[in-house]
Amino acid sequence: MQKRSIQRGRPAGATTYEAEPAKAFGAAVRALRMEHSVAQEDLANLAGIERSHLGKIERGTHMPTLALILKIARALGCSAADLMVETESRLAASVS
Amino acid sequence: MQKRSIQRGRPAGATTYEAEPAKAFGAAVRALRMEHSVAQEDLANLAGIERSHLGKIERGTHMPTLALILKIARALGCSAADLMVETESRLAASVS
Repeated sequence: MQKRSIQRGRPAGATTYEAEPAKAFGAAVRALRMEHSVAQEDLANLAGIERSHLGKIERGTHMPTLALILKIARALGCSAADLMVETESRLAASVS
Repeated sequence: MQKRSIQRGRPAGATTYEAEPAKAFGAAVRALRMEHSVAQEDLANLAGIERSHLGKIERGTHMPTLALILKIARALGCSAADLMVETESRLAASVS
């Protein structure tokens, strides 16, 4: 059997993924999308991303970057600040 | 000379990094930090990140994720929505 070398870095299974903010953001995006009655496919096209990517974001399994937040906000016809207000109120509700 | 194999994926040097949003966010963070007269080191500690990481964010060479935006906003004593308002106004000014 081959001897395993010592590997530097984080141990297997270690994660710093914070699900809560991603989930709150995803729920905010989904709610705003439903409000406008826009299909996931159409919103993804407007934002210039893949539908599957948007799906992951709405489910909270993908942490969006600032660039993506801005793109999705534009596609939803609102500002990123509006999207953050929605996200933070959901986050506050989930914490308390 | 060794023959180079065909590599799948994006060509070398290809990038989708969008510097504008990252720079606008960085400038907003720096401006708010200066307003509160907080040292980079102290703000990084409050946000629970490395000082060098915060430095990269302020210079716009690192794209922040949603989780990071929330952490930095909390450390600055404002909401992520406030930070987005600042970012978007800077972004609008740089575009026009």
